Amino acid sequence: MLTKIHHVGVVVRSADEALKFYRDALGLPVTEDRVIDDQGVRGILLKVGGSEIELLEPTRNDTGVARFLETRGEGMHHICFESDDVEAELEAARAKGIQLIDEKPRPGLAGMICFLHPKSNHGVLVEFAQPIAEH
Amino acid sequence: MLTKIHHVGVVVRSADEALKFYRDALGLPVTEDRVIDDQGVRGILLKVGGSEIELLEPTRNDTGVARFLETRGEGMHHICFESDDVEAELEAARAKGIQLIDEKPRPGLAGMICFLHPKSNHGVLVEFAQPIAEH
Repeated sequence: MLTKIHHVGVVVRSADEALKFYRDALGLPVTEDRVIDDQGVRGILLKVGGSEIELLEPTRNDTGVARFLETRGEGMHHICFESDDVEAELEAARAKGIQLIDEKPRPGLAGMICFLHPKSNHGVLVEFAQPIAEH
Repeated sequence: MLTKIHHVGVVVRSADEALKFYRDALGLPVTEDRVIDDQGVRGILLKVGGSEIELLEPTRNDTGVARFLETRGEGMHHICFESDDVEAELEAARAKGIQLIDEKPRPGLAGMICFLHPKSNHGVLVEFAQPIAEH
């Protein structure tokens, strides 16, 4: 079951510039800010209610995020729904004929995650995330 | 203060087709489905946690939503943050030099609403909404 919007991913050219809007003008608190080398992005999470805005700045040119920025410019990139069973969501989507990016859940920033392909989803890149219980 | 993601607006070519994904495959319940003549859209709300997905299908060709569909195709259109004082949010944004679409809040689907211009917001069309207390 999808329980909430976990985050909305936004691709930006410069995270520092974007923080002037999301943090300074909108007043959203930053809860995480780090470079994820293997994904080639600087990712920043800003909290709003029980959800987050995820700013994504590409740190190199050979990633999907970098190509998105080059072809579409800055803007909303994906929406992530939280699930209590990401494996079951993925199976259900597969059974409905939804085109998948990830054939099985994998570890990501938000816990165990997987992406569905925007071609099946009317142009929206959809992510499912099942947060890992904190210790 | 921005209290949560109120909804994410998604422009679609056919709301009936999009419901096959959002309602039937993702399992999100429809809470509203109506044509708003003066805005030239069919708007559908689907609930996920305390937020909503707002599907927008243009019903005529002379609207911003129709132009978005023509130039960018289907996809995420705007993000709406709920506020407990939309007038104050708008003033704060103006004071920070953010370019506005609405100079003052106006009645909308989600209560009193206003839009900020995506040029100031790194490509993201941002809406603020203050729901009107239900009777």
